[in-house]
Amino acid sequence: MSLPDEFHEIAKRVNNWGRWGADDEIGTLNLITDEVVREAAATVRHGRRVPLALPLRQDGVQTGMIPGRVNPLHTMVQINQELFGPGTVACSDDAVTMGLQAATHWDALPHVSHSGRIYNGRPATTVTAHGGAQFAGIDKPRHIVSRGILLDVARALGRDRLDSGHAVTPEDLEAAEELAGATVRPGDVVLVRTGQVQLHLAGDNHAYAFPSPGLSVRTPEWFHARDAAAVANDTLTFEIFPPEIEDLWLPVHALDLVEMGMLQGQNWNLEELSTACGELGRHTFLLSAMPEPFTGGTGTPVAPVAIL
Amino acid sequence: MSLPDEFHEIAKRVNNWGRWGADDEIGTLNLITDEVVREAAATVRHGRRVPLALPLRQDGVQTGMIPGRVNPLHTMVQINQELFGPGTVACSDDAVTMGLQAATHWDALPHVSHSGRIYNGRPATTVTAHGGAQFAGIDKPRHIVSRGILLDVARALGRDRLDSGHAVTPEDLEAAEELAGATVRPGDVVLVRTGQVQLHLAGDNHAYAFPSPGLSVRTPEWFHARDAAAVANDTLTFEIFPPEIEDLWLPVHALDLVEMGMLQGQNWNLEELSTACGELGRHTFLLSAMPEPFTGGTGTPVAPVAIL
Amino acid sequence: MSLPDEFHEIAKRVNNWGRWGADDEIGTLNLITDEVVREAAATVRHGRRVPLALPLRQDGVQTGMIPGRVNPLHTMVQINQELFGPGTVACSDDAVTMGLQAATHWDALPHVSHSGRIYNGRPATTVTAHGGAQFAGIDKPRHIVSRGILLDVARALGRDRLDSGHAVTPEDLEAAEELAGATVRPGDVVLVRTGQVQLHLAGDNHAYAFPSPGLSVRTPEWFHARDAAAVANDTLTFEIFPPEIEDLWLPVHALDLVEMGMLQGQNWNLEELSTACGELGRHTFLLSAMPEPFTGGTGTPVAPVAIL
Amino acid sequence: MSLPDEFHEIAKRVNNWGRWGADDEIGTLNLITDEVVREAAATVRHGRRVPLALPLRQDGVQTGMIPGRVNPLHTMVQINQELFGPGTVACSDDAVTMGLQAATHWDALPHVSHSGRIYNGRPATTVTAHGGAQFAGIDKPRHIVSRGILLDVARALGRDRLDSGHAVTPEDLEAAEELAGATVRPGDVVLVRTGQVQLHLAGDNHAYAFPSPGLSVRTPEWFHARDAAAVANDTLTFEIFPPEIEDLWLPVHALDLVEMGMLQGQNWNLEELSTACGELGRHTFLLSAMPEPFTGGTGTPVAPVAIL
Repeated sequence: MSLPDEFHEIAKRVNNWGRWGADDEIGTLNLITDEVVREAAATVRHGRRVPLALPLRQDGVQTGMIPGRVNPLHTMVQINQELFGPGTVACSDDAVTMGLQAATHWDALPHVSHSGRIYNGRPATTVTAHGGAQFAGIDKPRHIVSRGILLDVARALGRDRLDSGHAVTPEDLEAAEELAGATVRPGDVVLVRTGQVQLHLAGDNHAYAFPSPGLSVRTPEWFHARDAAAVANDTLTFEIFPPEIEDLWLPVHALDLVEMGMLQGQNWNLEELSTACGELGRHTFLLSAMPEPFTGGTGTPVAPVAIL
Repeated sequence: MSLPDEFHEIAKRVNNWGRWGADDEIGTLNLITDEVVREAAATVRHGRRVPLALPLRQDGVQTGMIPGRVNPLHTMVQINQELFGPGTVACSDDAVTMGLQAATHWDALPHVSHSGRIYNGRPATTVTAHGGAQFAGIDKPRHIVSRGILLDVARALGRDRLDSGHAVTPEDLEAAEELAGATVRPGDVVLVRTGQVQLHLAGDNHAYAFPSPGLSVRTPEWFHARDAAAVANDTLTFEIFPPEIEDLWLPVHALDLVEMGMLQGQNWNLEELSTACGELGRHTFLLSAMPEPFTGGTGTPVAPVAIL
Repeated sequence: MSLPDEFHEIAKRVNNWGRWGADDEIGTLNLITDEVVREAAATVRHGRRVPLALPLRQDGVQTGMIPGRVNPLHTMVQINQELFGPGTVACSDDAVTMGLQAATHWDALPHVSHSGRIYNGRPATTVTAHGGAQFAGIDKPRHIVSRGILLDVARALGRDRLDSGHAVTPEDLEAAEELAGATVRPGDVVLVRTGQVQLHLAGDNHAYAFPSPGLSVRTPEWFHARDAAAVANDTLTFEIFPPEIEDLWLPVHALDLVEMGMLQGQNWNLEELSTACGELGRHTFLLSAMPEPFTGGTGTPVAPVAIL
Repeated sequence: MSLPDEFHEIAKRVNNWGRWGADDEIGTLNLITDEVVREAAATVRHGRRVPLALPLRQDGVQTGMIPGRVNPLHTMVQINQELFGPGTVACSDDAVTMGLQAATHWDALPHVSHSGRIYNGRPATTVTAHGGAQFAGIDKPRHIVSRGILLDVARALGRDRLDSGHAVTPEDLEAAEELAGATVRPGDVVLVRTGQVQLHLAGDNHAYAFPSPGLSVRTPEWFHARDAAAVANDTLTFEIFPPEIEDLWLPVHALDLVEMGMLQGQNWNLEELSTACGELGRHTFLLSAMPEPFTGGTGTPVAPVAIL
């Protein structure tokens, strides 16, 4: 099997290899300039902060559908331990084991490969057991702070939550821009709300995972045209799942991560943000979504915050 | 053994139990109001971002001195795996095991207890193996975004790095305020630079860990008087270690976390920030330092970013 | 709530506290004398070996029903890594995270407590986050090698597999002894087959876990009378689950582990052994079921082998 | 760089590829026949059992020299948790994270590869992040029970412990056979004692690890000639380390595991066994050393026991 011509044609149109040099490891994050950040900071008018991460716990979104992507196992290694003798100050310490893509996370660029290549044309073999991603790993973007814009597709379409088979199209994104009263600008981190995370919040992780609404294979070109810096949404699979084109699995991942070099975020909880944006009548804000700098990581948990 | 009278006297003076209600679980973070955040955002003038986290990797700062506090073990669970058949888009996934206090981190309020109590007078027994910290765990602060201020004590004292036996005093902090041309305000997150992390960066984790300069037992009153929201520095132990008063171990932890309810940050890399502040001639900035929301966590890795 | 009188009456009858001294940490394993082992070795007539452990993998028996008892997460940390340069001998290494009670395992004596006590009357507080079980942990039995006897209750009752509500009684055990043509002797490790593990082998972990046949609250007295050294079976819960007496959960655990000081084994696969015993016409054998010596462990994975 | 001719010449002489069929995944363990096991059981005369595993704990033999091979991190996930309500039977559960080769362990055959091949000529690429070793993993040997023979080289040479630069030669092994009053027979598991583990037991893990005495590159032919089923010793590196031939690292691993298909054991504590054999005047015994059946594992912790 190989990827269909249709895929390769889109790939050519969105390809950013070499755009920021042959050695670039952060892709569209280059679009977040100091000026973009200054303007992003200037959007803060209320001082209200909205966290976007799901709790990290055993009862997380993973169901075992994806092998090895385990929910956080949080354990105590010390509990009120008087390390310096009886009656002294006592310490509690904990440890965790978790999949880096298990919860609210960023995919690093080498999280997927196709045709043996990752972003910037580097060989997929640069990901190894010994050290993980040697090129463009999640330790390479030093910071992700920019203007955030909520494209509340569910609300724009008058829905609480999109149907499980709904592929979010460029037209949907433009309807959400209209609702937002703002358009995506170069360097923006775009948050696309489907409402799908409500299923997880209601306790049904299987329904949350699959089938799932998500971004259409037509969206990478749209994000490319607008020069978005990164895109995140409130689903497990990011893109419509199962896919729109039979047997073409994860085309959006391949286009965004490999061809464009654009980070994707998944399992972001955008419910409270949707409410806040509705109340304040604004959909742009300062967004801080710093990767935990795992050396060689192909993903990372993230605790994003929107500052309105 | 019990804690000396001297400790209990300071404890009374800095105690915040009940200040934000008997059920409050976030302590001095209450001081970060919307107004504080608005003013913090207004400090962003250059758009320059400085990350403050150390890399997360096996070769981290832990030496085994603290039982169970293990450096991150990063492993791959999928490498370019064609989950949907040969020739399809391939995925790489990873997992990690680590101590929550192993790297650049926040201590949650119940990270220490004394005399059987944690913050707000709750029993230390609210920390259990089953679920971790039931009260005031690291999942309770929903966001940590505020004005940051760098108190560059090393630079203020004309040193690259403080001596291993140097207890940072209120007088030192005031010298650093003078260098900063700014004073700590209510709701600030205060970053105290000793330069000690240079030893880790140079590869000597044992020298980094112990003995270590750090905050004096006299500093909690100073932070209390100024109503700081949180304090972080660039050492493993946060406070001077071994301690100033014989056999009184971790008094600053007990005063800050238990009595004041003020979060502490450790192993923050403040070297690049020091340089940036020097270059830009300013020491205040917007700081985002979001905890990863581990349910019941007594600490969390954090990837802070200063936005200048 | 407290445990009912009925429980305490049985407890008195099976109690072994002090029987091997106030400091004893291995309980009925004391019954495995050198002579018992010599006689056990003499049972080996065919040289046939039957392994009794389930595979250790993500797709194991745990369903999330028991918080924190996670199936093994096996990850590679090196894959054909030429650590000494290109063209040299290459190494592959792996790591695992797992619950010690997740798969085929032994419960250590302090795995349960009741009324604040563990085996030999020691306080339950001897189990701590810092170091685990200080008394009678799984590191204390230095070896478990003895005569094994298969009590094939399912077969003795003419069933492939016992009903989910079947409490295995002393009468059932005696029927199985009759089938075996042998009786339990002091120092024996007794393997009780219900057939329940077939549900797991067929892929239905939920049906396997609950409800489950298992040992009746009447069996501890029977094992006590015969001076068994340890008992294992092919269920997740060991004892009938839900329990025979309303609101009296895990009475068999409490009687076996706390009162008698007798180790329990769970999730043992006895299917092949049942076939082998049927074919060879014998139900006793040499059994080696060595605990992995986790310091302070309250349980351990085990790879038992019957040698016939 | 490629492996020297000298290596390839030995490789030809000890190669067992195809000897037990093209699909064989257990190599020399095929030599452990029912008859071998019957005779092994017949060696049990005293009933004395000697465990050979080191404790599993954070303070284990690993020093960080081998990336990712982490000492066991044992954590509690439940401590006396009354899962069914106050006053009910309480449970303690634990979890572990560890390298499979970190402590007393077996190397599986695909633990090393050379020239792109593992045992039986299969490609090294059969080891993947997704599932580990697809061929000849540690889940494939269903049991390891055989006659054990202690070749106490240190004692035979009149030493407490061999020098760090001592390569154990065939002549040394024969001296130890003479001391044992027995010779290695087909199907034996051979335990070679150097005394090196004393350094670990005395607390010096660095001295234990490197430099280390161990088996000479000349020994694979000797074990091949005698048709040993497996070999284990009391060192971290198994073979002399650094190696006898400059720049030829791990030749014994490559010959034993890849060419012969013979499992190796490392970090076995043979001190108590040496004493017992001396006291009883015999060096052969029944040995049970069951692998934990990690699916796809390239190694496994093992708790071996010698039954004399």
